[in-house]
Amino acid sequence: MNFTEKLHNVINKNQSLLCVGLDIATDRLPRHIRDRENPALEFARNIIEATKDVVCAYKTNFAFYEAMGPVGWETLRQVLESIPEDIVTIGDAKRGDIGNTSEMYARAIFEDFGFDAATAAPFMGRDSVQPFLDRKHKCTFFLTLTSNPGSRDFLYLNVDSRPFYMRVAETVMGWNENGNCGFVVGATHPEELAGIRETVGDAPILIPGIGAQGGSVEASVRAGCDSRGEGAIFNVSRGVLYASDGEDFAAAARNRAMEIRDEINKYRKKG
Amino acid sequence: MNFTEKLHNVINKNQSLLCVGLDIATDRLPRHIRDRENPALEFARNIIEATKDVVCAYKTNFAFYEAMGPVGWETLRQVLESIPEDIVTIGDAKRGDIGNTSEMYARAIFEDFGFDAATAAPFMGRDSVQPFLDRKHKCTFFLTLTSNPGSRDFLYLNVDSRPFYMRVAETVMGWNENGNCGFVVGATHPEELAGIRETVGDAPILIPGIGAQGGSVEASVRAGCDSRGEGAIFNVSRGVLYASDGEDFAAAARNRAMEIRDEINKYRKKG
Repeated sequence: MNFTEKLHNVINKNQSLLCVGLDIATDRLPRHIRDRENPALEFARNIIEATKDVVCAYKTNFAFYEAMGPVGWETLRQVLESIPEDIVTIGDAKRGDIGNTSEMYARAIFEDFGFDAATAAPFMGRDSVQPFLDRKHKCTFFLTLTSNPGSRDFLYLNVDSRPFYMRVAETVMGWNENGNCGFVVGATHPEELAGIRETVGDAPILIPGIGAQGGSVEASVRAGCDSRGEGAIFNVSRGVLYASDGEDFAAAARNRAMEIRDEINKYRKKG
Repeated sequence: MNFTEKLHNVINKNQSLLCVGLDIATDRLPRHIRDRENPALEFARNIIEATKDVVCAYKTNFAFYEAMGPVGWETLRQVLESIPEDIVTIGDAKRGDIGNTSEMYARAIFEDFGFDAATAAPFMGRDSVQPFLDRKHKCTFFLTLTSNPGSRDFLYLNVDSRPFYMRVAETVMGWNENGNCGFVVGATHPEELAGIRETVGDAPILIPGIGAQGGSVEASVRAGCDSRGEGAIFNVSRGVLYASDGEDFAAAARNRAMEIRDEINKYRKKG
Protein backbone atom coordinates (compact mmCIF):
# COMPACT_ATOMS: atom_id res chain seq x y z
CA MET A 1 0.00 0.00 0.00
CA ASN A 2 1.41 3.38 -0.87
CA PHE A 3 1.40 6.50 1.28
CA THR A 4 -1.63 8.13 -0.37
CA GLU A 5 -3.87 5.11 0.26
CA LYS A 6 -2.59 4.65 3.78
CA LEU A 7 -3.26 8.29 4.62
CA HIS A 8 -6.73 8.18 3.06
CA ASN A 9 -7.62 5.02 4.99
CA VAL A 10 -6.53 6.28 8.39
CA ILE A 11 -8.18 9.67 7.89
CA ASN A 12 -11.43 7.87 7.26
CA LYS A 13 -11.05 5.31 10.00
CA ASN A 14 -10.26 7.85 12.72
CA GLN A 15 -12.11 10.76 11.12
CA SER A 16 -9.09 12.88 11.81
CA LEU A 17 -6.62 15.20 10.11
CA LEU A 18 -4.65 15.56 13.33
CA CYS A 19 -1.01 14.57 13.60
CA VAL A 20 0.55 14.45 17.04
CA GLY A 21 4.20 15.47 17.10
CA LEU A 22 6.06 13.16 19.47
CA ASP A 23 8.69 15.82 20.22
CA ILE A 24 9.66 14.69 23.65
CA ALA A 25 11.68 17.14 25.70
CA THR A 26 12.98 15.15 28.65
CA ASP A 27 12.83 18.19 30.94
CA ARG A 28 9.09 18.56 30.37
CA LEU A 29 8.07 15.04 31.33
CA PRO A 30 5.66 14.54 34.26
CA ARG A 31 7.57 14.15 37.51
CA HIS A 32 6.11 10.77 38.40
CA ILE A 33 7.69 9.02 35.40
CA ARG A 34 11.08 10.74 35.44
CA ASP A 35 12.71 7.99 37.47
CA ARG A 36 11.61 5.18 35.14
CA GLU A 37 14.23 3.35 33.09
CA ASN A 38 13.48 5.25 29.87
CA PRO A 39 11.01 8.02 30.78
CA ALA A 40 10.83 9.41 27.22
CA LEU A 41 9.85 6.03 25.79
CA GLU A 42 7.31 5.38 28.52
CA PHE A 43 5.83 8.83 27.99
CA ALA A 44 5.60 8.33 24.22
CA ARG A 45 3.97 4.92 24.58
CA ASN A 46 1.34 6.34 26.91
CA ILE A 47 0.61 9.22 24.54
CA ILE A 48 0.30 6.84 21.58
CA GLU A 49 -1.95 4.46 23.49
CA ALA A 50 -4.19 7.37 24.52
CA THR A 51 -4.45 9.04 21.10
CA LYS A 52 -4.12 6.28 18.50
CA ASP A 53 -7.80 6.33 17.53
CA VAL A 54 -7.91 10.14 17.32
CA VAL A 55 -5.05 10.88 14.91
CA CYS A 56 -4.13 10.17 11.30
CA ALA A 57 -0.39 10.45 11.87
CA TYR A 58 2.48 10.74 14.32
CA LYS A 59 5.47 12.91 13.54
CA THR A 60 8.82 12.62 15.27
CA ASN A 61 11.26 15.49 15.05
CA PHE A 62 14.75 13.99 15.03
CA ALA A 63 16.26 16.89 17.00
CA PHE A 64 14.55 15.79 20.20
CA TYR A 65 15.89 12.26 19.92
CA GLU A 66 19.39 13.36 18.90
CA ALA A 67 19.47 15.56 21.99
CA MET A 68 19.09 12.43 24.16
CA GLY A 69 22.49 11.18 23.00
CA PRO A 70 23.10 7.57 21.94
CA VAL A 71 19.96 6.31 23.72
CA GLY A 72 17.85 8.64 21.55
CA TRP A 73 18.39 6.66 18.39
CA GLU A 74 17.17 3.46 20.02
CA THR A 75 14.30 5.32 21.72
CA LEU A 76 13.13 6.63 18.36
CA ARG A 77 13.14 3.09 17.00
CA GLN A 78 11.11 1.84 19.96
CA VAL A 79 8.66 4.74 19.72
CA LEU A 80 8.08 3.86 16.06
CA GLU A 81 7.47 0.21 16.95
CA SER A 82 4.77 1.33 19.37
CA ILE A 83 2.75 3.06 16.65
CA PRO A 84 -0.07 0.91 15.21
CA GLU A 85 0.58 -0.31 11.66
CA ASP A 86 -2.28 1.65 10.08
CA ILE A 87 -1.24 5.10 11.29
CA VAL A 88 1.01 7.26 9.12
CA THR A 89 4.51 7.97 10.51
CA ILE A 90 6.44 11.09 9.51
CA GLY A 91 10.19 11.39 10.13
CA ASP A 92 10.68 15.12 10.55
CA ALA A 93 14.37 15.59 9.89
CA LYS A 94 14.29 18.41 7.28
CA ARG A 95 17.22 16.80 5.50
CA GLY A 96 18.81 18.11 2.34
CA ASP A 97 22.30 17.36 1.10
CA ILE A 98 24.07 16.48 -2.10
CA GLY A 99 23.89 13.17 -3.99
CA ASN A 100 25.42 10.28 -2.10
CA THR A 101 24.73 11.91 1.27
CA SER A 102 21.07 12.39 0.48
CA GLU A 103 20.83 8.69 -0.36
CA MET A 104 22.12 7.81 3.11
CA TYR A 105 19.57 10.08 4.77
CA ALA A 106 16.73 8.62 2.69
CA ARG A 107 17.82 5.09 3.50
CA ALA A 108 18.03 5.83 7.23
CA ILE A 109 14.55 7.38 7.34
CA PHE A 110 12.62 5.10 4.98
CA GLU A 111 14.37 1.73 5.22
CA ASP A 112 16.25 1.60 8.54
CA PHE A 113 13.56 3.34 10.58
CA GLY A 114 10.72 2.50 8.20
CA PHE A 115 8.88 5.83 8.23
CA ASP A 116 6.02 6.32 5.75
CA ALA A 117 7.01 9.92 5.09
CA ALA A 118 9.79 12.42 5.69
CA THR A 119 10.33 16.15 5.67
CA ALA A 120 13.12 17.56 3.48
CA ALA A 121 14.57 20.91 2.44
CA PRO A 122 14.28 21.45 -1.34
CA PHE A 123 16.57 24.48 -1.57
CA MET A 124 19.67 22.71 -2.90
CA GLY A 125 17.65 21.50 -5.86
CA ARG A 126 16.30 18.31 -7.37
CA ASP A 127 19.40 16.13 -7.32
CA SER A 128 19.78 16.87 -3.61
CA VAL A 129 16.47 15.14 -2.91
CA GLN A 130 16.30 12.62 -5.77
CA PRO A 131 16.79 9.65 -3.39
CA PHE A 132 13.67 10.80 -1.52
CA LEU A 133 11.71 11.15 -4.80
CA ASP A 134 12.84 7.65 -5.81
CA ARG A 135 10.94 6.09 -2.89
CA LYS A 136 7.72 5.79 -4.87
CA HIS A 137 5.48 4.47 -2.14
CA LYS A 138 6.68 6.91 0.48
CA CYS A 139 5.97 10.64 0.74
CA THR A 140 8.34 13.54 1.19
CA PHE A 141 7.03 16.84 2.55
CA PHE A 142 9.14 19.71 1.25
CA LEU A 143 9.64 22.87 3.29
CA THR A 144 7.73 25.54 1.42
CA LEU A 145 6.57 28.25 3.81
CA THR A 146 7.39 27.80 7.47
CA SER A 147 5.45 29.10 10.45
CA ASN A 148 8.26 31.10 12.09
CA PRO A 149 8.85 34.88 11.86
CA GLY A 150 12.11 34.29 9.95
CA SER A 151 10.14 32.95 6.99
CA ARG A 152 10.16 36.63 5.92
CA ASP A 153 13.95 36.60 5.44
CA PHE A 154 14.02 34.47 2.29
CA LEU A 155 10.78 32.65 1.56
CA TYR A 156 8.85 35.84 0.74
CA LEU A 157 11.51 37.35 -1.54
CA ASN A 158 10.22 38.41 -4.94
CA VAL A 159 11.20 36.19 -7.85
CA ASP A 160 9.76 37.44 -11.14
CA SER A 161 7.12 39.41 -9.21
CA ARG A 162 5.97 36.40 -7.24
CA PRO A 163 7.04 35.13 -3.83
CA PHE A 164 9.87 32.61 -3.62
CA TYR A 165 7.68 30.09 -1.76
CA MET A 166 5.33 29.87 -4.77
CA ARG A 167 8.33 29.10 -6.94
CA VAL A 168 9.25 26.34 -4.49
CA ALA A 169 5.74 24.86 -4.72
CA GLU A 170 5.75 24.97 -8.53
CA THR A 171 9.23 23.53 -8.89
CA VAL A 172 8.52 20.67 -6.48
CA MET A 173 5.32 19.88 -8.42
CA GLY A 174 7.64 19.41 -11.41
CA TRP A 175 9.44 16.69 -9.40
CA ASN A 176 6.19 14.90 -8.64
CA GLU A 177 6.13 12.22 -11.37
CA ASN A 178 5.63 9.54 -8.72
CA GLY A 179 2.87 11.46 -6.96
CA ASN A 180 4.89 11.29 -3.75
CA CYS A 181 5.61 14.96 -3.04
CA GLY A 182 4.02 16.88 -0.20
CA PHE A 183 4.52 20.37 1.21
CA VAL A 184 5.12 21.93 4.63
CA VAL A 185 3.19 25.17 5.06
CA GLY A 186 2.69 26.91 8.40
CA ALA A 187 -0.84 27.58 9.71
CA THR A 188 0.29 31.10 10.54
CA HIS A 189 -0.03 32.00 6.84
CA PRO A 190 -3.59 30.99 5.82
CA GLU A 191 -3.82 33.23 2.72
CA GLU A 192 -0.54 31.96 1.38
CA LEU A 193 -1.64 28.42 2.23
CA ALA A 194 -4.70 28.89 -0.01
CA GLY A 195 -2.45 29.98 -2.88
CA ILE A 196 -0.18 27.00 -2.41
CA ARG A 197 -3.17 24.61 -2.26
CA GLU A 198 -4.30 25.97 -5.61
CA THR A 199 -0.87 25.28 -7.11
CA VAL A 200 -0.38 21.76 -5.75
CA GLY A 201 -3.81 20.28 -6.46
CA ASP A 202 -4.57 17.34 -4.18
CA ALA A 203 -0.99 16.83 -2.96
CA PRO A 204 -0.72 16.43 0.83
CA ILE A 205 0.22 19.46 2.92
CA LEU A 206 1.69 19.13 6.39
CA ILE A 207 0.56 22.11 8.45
CA PRO A 208 2.30 22.94 11.72
CA GLY A 209 1.45 25.98 13.79
CA ILE A 210 -2.14 25.66 15.02
CA GLY A 211 -1.08 24.83 18.57
CA ALA A 212 1.57 26.69 20.56
CA GLN A 213 2.34 28.87 17.54
CA GLY A 214 -1.17 30.30 17.41
CA GLY A 215 -2.37 29.74 13.82
CA SER A 216 -6.15 29.82 13.33
CA VAL A 217 -7.75 26.40 12.94
CA GLU A 218 -10.70 27.64 10.92
CA ALA A 219 -8.63 29.66 8.45
CA SER A 220 -6.05 26.97 7.90
CA VAL A 221 -8.59 24.15 7.50
CA ARG A 222 -10.54 26.14 4.92
CA ALA A 223 -7.34 27.09 3.08
CA GLY A 224 -5.42 23.83 3.44
CA CYS A 225 -7.76 20.92 2.66
CA ASP A 226 -7.94 19.50 -0.83
CA SER A 227 -11.05 19.07 -2.97
CA ARG A 228 -12.10 15.97 -0.97
CA GLY A 229 -11.74 17.69 2.41
CA GLU A 230 -8.55 15.73 3.01
CA GLY A 231 -4.90 16.19 2.03
CA ALA A 232 -4.06 18.39 4.99
CA ILE A 233 -2.33 17.04 8.07
CA PHE A 234 -2.37 19.37 11.05
CA ASN A 235 0.49 18.85 13.42
CA VAL A 236 0.30 19.71 17.11
CA SER A 237 3.11 18.76 19.46
CA ARG A 238 3.43 20.59 22.78
CA GLY A 239 -0.28 21.46 22.96
CA VAL A 240 -1.18 17.78 23.18
CA LEU A 241 1.90 16.25 24.85
CA TYR A 242 1.95 18.63 27.79
CA ALA A 243 -1.79 19.19 28.25
CA SER A 244 -1.15 18.10 31.84
CA ASP A 245 2.07 17.45 33.70
CA GLY A 246 0.37 15.31 36.32
CA GLU A 247 -0.46 11.63 36.55
CA ASP A 248 -3.39 12.25 34.21
CA PHE A 249 -1.10 13.37 31.36
CA ALA A 250 -2.25 10.67 28.93
CA ALA A 251 -5.96 11.26 29.54
CA ALA A 252 -5.42 15.02 29.25
CA ALA A 253 -3.54 14.53 25.98
CA ARG A 254 -6.41 12.42 24.66
CA ASN A 255 -8.99 15.05 25.59
CA ARG A 256 -6.95 17.82 24.01
CA ALA A 257 -6.38 15.75 20.84
CA MET A 258 -10.12 15.05 20.57
CA GLU A 259 -10.93 18.74 20.95
CA ILE A 260 -8.51 19.72 18.19
CA ARG A 261 -9.65 16.91 15.91
CA ASP A 262 -13.27 17.95 16.37
CA GLU A 263 -12.50 21.61 15.79
CA ILE A 264 -10.71 20.71 12.54
CA ASN A 265 -13.64 18.54 11.44
CA LYS A 266 -16.09 21.37 12.12
CA TYR A 267 -14.56 23.43 9.30
CA ARG A 268 -13.69 20.55 7.02
CA LYS A 269 -15.67 20.17 3.85
CA LYS A 270 -16.84 16.56 3.63
CA GLY A 271 -15.79 14.77 0.41
CA MET B 1 40.06 30.52 22.30
CA ASN B 2 37.43 31.30 19.71
CA PHE B 3 36.99 29.67 16.33
CA THR B 4 38.75 32.40 14.32
CA GLU B 5 41.93 32.18 16.39
CA LYS B 6 41.91 28.41 16.42
CA LEU B 7 41.56 28.27 12.63
CA HIS B 8 44.29 30.87 12.12
CA ASN B 9 46.66 28.98 14.42
CA VAL B 10 46.20 25.58 12.81
CA ILE B 11 46.43 27.00 9.28
CA ASN B 12 49.80 28.46 10.20
CA LYS B 13 51.04 25.46 12.11
CA ASN B 14 50.23 22.96 9.37
CA GLN B 15 50.52 25.42 6.47
CA SER B 16 47.27 24.01 5.18
CA LEU B 17 43.80 25.07 4.05
CA LEU B 18 42.79 21.44 3.55
CA CYS B 19 39.90 19.88 5.44
CA VAL B 20 39.49 16.13 5.23
CA GLY B 21 35.88 14.99 5.27
CA LEU B 22 35.61 11.87 7.43
CA ASP B 23 32.57 10.61 5.51
CA ILE B 24 33.02 6.95 6.10
CA ALA B 25 30.95 4.65 3.92
CA THR B 26 31.24 1.23 5.51
CA ASP B 27 31.02 -0.52 2.11
CA ARG B 28 34.13 1.29 0.87
CA LEU B 29 36.46 0.31 3.67
CA PRO B 30 39.61 -1.68 2.84
CA ARG B 31 38.91 -5.41 3.04
CA HIS B 32 41.60 -6.16 5.60
CA ILE B 33 39.92 -4.08 8.33
CA ARG B 34 36.31 -5.03 7.64
CA ASP B 35 36.31 -7.83 10.23
CA ARG B 36 37.56 -5.61 13.06
CA GLU B 37 35.23 -4.76 15.93
CA ASN B 38 34.42 -1.26 14.64
CA PRO B 39 35.98 -0.96 11.18
CA ALA B 40 34.70 2.59 10.60
CA LEU B 41 36.30 3.86 13.78
CA GLU B 42 39.56 2.07 13.11
CA PHE B 43 39.61 3.46 9.58
CA ALA B 44 38.94 7.01 10.80
CA ARG B 45 41.64 6.80 13.48
CA ASN B 46 44.19 5.66 10.92
CA ILE B 47 43.25 8.46 8.53
CA ILE B 48 43.49 11.06 11.32
CA GLU B 49 46.84 9.73 12.51
CA ALA B 50 48.18 9.85 8.93
CA THR B 51 46.93 13.33 8.04
CA LYS B 52 46.81 15.33 11.28
CA ASP B 53 49.84 17.46 10.43
CA VAL B 54 48.62 18.14 6.88
CA VAL B 55 45.13 19.54 7.49
CA CYS B 56 43.55 22.53 9.19
CA ALA B 57 40.23 20.80 9.85
CA TYR B 58 38.22 17.60 9.83
CA LYS B 59 34.59 17.59 8.81
CA THR B 60 32.15 14.83 9.63
CA ASN B 61 28.94 14.57 7.66
CA PHE B 62 26.28 13.26 10.05
CA ALA B 63 24.51 11.24 7.32
CA PHE B 64 27.29 8.69 7.19
CA TYR B 65 27.17 8.10 10.93
CA GLU B 66 23.37 8.01 11.09
CA ALA B 67 23.42 5.36 8.37
CA MET B 68 25.39 3.08 10.72
CA GLY B 69 22.42 2.89 13.10
CA PRO B 70 22.78 3.27 16.89
CA VAL B 71 26.52 2.48 16.79
CA GLY B 72 27.06 5.48 14.50
CA TRP B 73 26.35 8.02 17.19
CA GLU B 74 28.97 6.52 19.49
CA THR B 75 31.39 6.11 16.58
CA LEU B 76 31.09 9.81 15.76
CA ARG B 77 31.87 10.65 19.38
CA GLN B 78 34.93 8.40 19.35
CA VAL B 79 36.13 9.78 16.00
CA LEU B 80 35.93 13.29 17.45
CA GLU B 81 37.94 12.22 20.51
CA SER B 82 40.66 10.98 18.18
CA ILE B 83 41.16 14.41 16.60
CA PRO B 84 44.01 16.44 18.15
CA GLU B 85 42.85 19.40 20.23
CA ASP B 86 44.37 22.06 17.96
CA ILE B 87 42.61 20.99 14.74
CA VAL B 88 39.26 22.53 13.82
CA THR B 89 36.26 20.17 13.81
CA ILE B 90 33.20 20.83 11.66
CA GLY B 91 29.90 19.05 12.28
CA ASP B 92 28.33 18.92 8.83
CA ALA B 93 24.67 18.38 9.56
CA LYS B 94 23.09 21.17 7.47
CA ARG B 95 20.47 21.67 10.15
CA GLY B 96 17.73 24.26 10.05
CA ASP B 97 14.49 24.17 12.01
CA ILE B 98 12.29 26.47 14.01
CA GLY B 99 13.05 27.91 17.46
CA ASN B 100 13.12 25.30 20.18
CA THR B 101 14.15 22.56 17.74
CA SER B 102 17.08 24.58 16.45
CA GLU B 103 18.28 25.02 20.02
CA MET B 104 18.36 21.25 20.46
CA TYR B 105 20.38 20.79 17.27
CA ALA B 106 22.85 23.50 18.29
CA ARG B 107 23.24 21.97 21.72
CA ALA B 108 23.87 18.50 20.29
CA ILE B 109 26.51 19.74 17.85
CA PHE B 110 28.34 22.32 19.96
CA GLU B 111 27.95 21.10 23.54
CA ASP B 112 27.23 17.36 23.48
CA PHE B 113 29.65 16.55 20.65
CA GLY B 114 31.81 19.63 21.16
CA PHE B 115 32.39 20.60 17.53
CA ASP B 116 34.12 23.93 16.82
CA ALA B 117 31.86 24.62 13.86
CA ALA B 118 28.68 23.45 12.15
CA THR B 119 26.95 23.74 8.82
CA ALA B 120 23.37 25.02 8.74
CA ALA B 121 20.67 25.91 6.23
CA PRO B 122 19.70 29.61 6.47
CA PHE B 123 16.56 29.41 4.32
CA MET B 124 14.00 29.42 7.13
CA GLY B 125 15.40 32.73 8.33
CA ARG B 126 17.24 34.20 11.27
CA ASP B 127 15.19 32.88 14.17
CA SER B 128 15.62 29.36 12.79
CA VAL B 129 19.39 29.60 13.33
CA GLN B 130 19.57 32.04 16.26
CA PRO B 131 20.77 29.30 18.66
CA PHE B 132 23.71 28.73 16.32
CA LEU B 133 24.46 32.48 16.16
CA ASP B 134 24.33 32.65 19.96
CA ARG B 135 27.36 30.36 20.25
CA LYS B 136 29.82 33.26 20.07
CA HIS B 137 33.03 31.27 20.10
CA LYS B 138 31.87 28.70 17.58
CA CYS B 139 31.35 29.15 13.83
CA THR B 140 28.38 28.27 11.67
CA PHE B 141 28.85 27.83 7.93
CA PHE B 142 25.63 28.69 6.11
CA LEU B 143 24.70 26.97 2.86
CA THR B 144 25.01 29.69 0.22
CA LEU B 145 25.82 28.14 -3.15
CA THR B 146 26.25 24.40 -3.29
CA SER B 147 28.40 22.40 -5.69
CA ASN B 148 25.65 20.17 -7.13
CA PRO B 149 23.81 20.64 -10.45
CA GLY B 150 20.54 21.27 -8.58
CA SER B 151 21.94 24.54 -7.25
CA ARG B 152 20.39 25.96 -10.46
CA ASP B 153 16.85 25.16 -9.26
CA PHE B 154 16.62 27.83 -6.57
CA LEU B 155 19.95 29.38 -5.61
CA TYR B 156 20.39 31.17 -8.95
CA LEU B 157 16.88 32.61 -9.14
CA ASN B 158 16.75 36.33 -9.75
CA VAL B 159 15.80 38.46 -6.77
CA ASP B 160 15.76 42.18 -7.63
CA SER B 161 18.03 41.49 -10.63
CA ARG B 162 20.61 39.65 -8.55
CA PRO B 163 21.02 35.96 -7.80
CA PHE B 164 19.36 34.53 -4.71
CA TYR B 165 22.70 33.20 -3.37
CA MET B 166 24.03 36.79 -3.15
CA ARG B 167 20.99 37.71 -1.13
CA VAL B 168 21.75 34.80 1.16
CA ALA B 169 25.34 35.99 1.63
CA GLU B 170 24.25 39.57 2.36
CA THR B 171 21.49 38.58 4.75
CA VAL B 172 23.74 36.23 6.71
CA MET B 173 26.35 39.01 6.98
CA GLY B 174 23.58 40.99 8.71
CA TRP B 175 23.41 38.19 11.32
CA ASN B 176 27.15 38.34 11.94
CA GLU B 177 27.32 40.61 15.03
CA ASN B 178 29.40 37.99 16.81
CA GLY B 179 31.75 37.48 13.88
CA ASN B 180 30.88 33.78 13.90
CA CYS B 181 29.20 33.29 10.50
CA GLY B 182 30.77 31.40 7.65
CA PHE B 183 29.55 30.33 4.21
CA VAL B 184 29.45 27.13 2.18
CA VAL B 185 30.23 27.73 -1.49
CA GLY B 186 31.05 24.97 -3.98
CA ALA B 187 34.37 25.00 -5.85
CA THR B 188 32.42 24.26 -9.03
CA HIS B 189 31.39 27.96 -9.16
CA PRO B 190 34.66 29.97 -8.98
CA GLU B 191 33.26 33.20 -10.47
CA GLU B 192 30.36 33.22 -8.06
CA LEU B 193 32.76 32.36 -5.25
CA ALA B 194 34.74 35.53 -6.05
CA GLY B 195 31.56 37.61 -5.82
CA ILE B 196 30.62 36.06 -2.50
CA ARG B 197 34.14 36.61 -1.12
CA GLU B 198 33.79 40.30 -2.00
CA THR B 199 30.51 40.48 -0.07
CA VAL B 200 31.61 38.63 3.06
CA GLY B 201 35.00 40.27 3.66
CA ASP B 202 37.28 38.02 5.70
CA ALA B 203 34.57 35.63 6.91
CA PRO B 204 35.50 31.96 6.53
CA ILE B 205 34.22 30.04 3.51
CA LEU B 206 33.97 26.26 3.48
CA ILE B 207 34.58 25.08 -0.08
CA PRO B 208 33.63 21.53 -1.07
CA GLY B 209 33.97 20.24 -4.60
CA ILE B 210 37.65 20.23 -5.56
CA GLY B 211 37.94 16.45 -5.26
CA ALA B 212 35.50 13.94 -6.71
CA GLN B 213 33.25 16.77 -7.87
CA GLY B 214 35.91 18.24 -10.17
CA GLY B 215 36.17 21.91 -9.17
CA SER B 216 39.43 23.64 -10.20
CA VAL B 217 41.90 24.11 -7.35
CA GLU B 218 43.61 27.13 -8.91
CA ALA B 219 40.39 29.00 -9.69
CA SER B 220 38.80 28.34 -6.32
CA VAL B 221 41.90 29.22 -4.30
CA ARG B 222 42.28 32.51 -6.16
CA ALA B 223 38.57 33.30 -5.76
CA GLY B 224 38.03 31.93 -2.26
CA CYS B 225 40.88 33.09 -0.01
CA ASP B 226 40.56 36.26 2.02
CA SER B 227 42.92 39.24 2.03
CA ARG B 228 45.42 37.34 4.22
CA GLY B 229 45.46 34.27 1.97
CA GLU B 230 43.40 32.41 4.56
CA GLY B 231 39.69 32.19 5.35
CA ALA B 232 39.02 29.40 2.87
CA ILE B 233 38.74 25.78 3.96
CA PHE B 234 38.85 23.28 1.11
CA ASN B 235 37.09 20.04 1.89
CA VAL B 236 37.99 16.77 0.21
CA SER B 237 36.42 13.52 1.38
CA ARG B 238 36.47 10.53 -0.96
CA GLY B 239 39.57 11.69 -2.85
CA VAL B 240 41.66 11.35 0.31
CA LEU B 241 39.85 8.58 2.23
CA TYR B 242 39.83 6.09 -0.60
CA ALA B 243 43.15 6.96 -2.27
CA SER B 244 43.92 3.26 -1.86
CA ASP B 245 41.74 0.35 -0.76
CA GLY B 246 44.72 -1.77 0.19
CA GLU B 247 46.73 -2.16 3.38
CA ASP B 248 48.53 1.07 2.50
CA PHE B 249 45.30 3.12 2.69
CA ALA B 250 46.56 5.48 5.42
CA ALA B 251 49.88 6.19 3.71
CA ALA B 252 48.07 6.72 0.41
CA ALA B 253 45.64 9.11 2.09
CA ARG B 254 48.54 11.05 3.56
CA ASN B 255 50.26 11.34 0.18
CA ARG B 256 47.09 12.47 -1.51
CA ALA B 257 46.37 15.01 1.27
CA MET B 258 49.89 16.43 0.96
CA GLU B 259 49.53 16.76 -2.81
CA ILE B 260 46.25 18.66 -2.46
CA ARG B 261 47.58 20.83 0.36
CA ASP B 262 50.62 21.73 -1.71
CA GLU B 263 48.57 22.45 -4.81
CA ILE B 264 46.34 24.79 -2.76
CA ASN B 265 49.40 26.54 -1.30
CA LYS B 266 50.87 27.03 -4.78
CA TYR B 267 48.03 29.40 -5.68
CA ARG B 268 47.58 30.94 -2.25
CA LYS B 269 48.61 34.53 -1.75
CA LYS B 270 50.76 34.69 1.37
CA GLY B 271 49.54 37.15 4.02
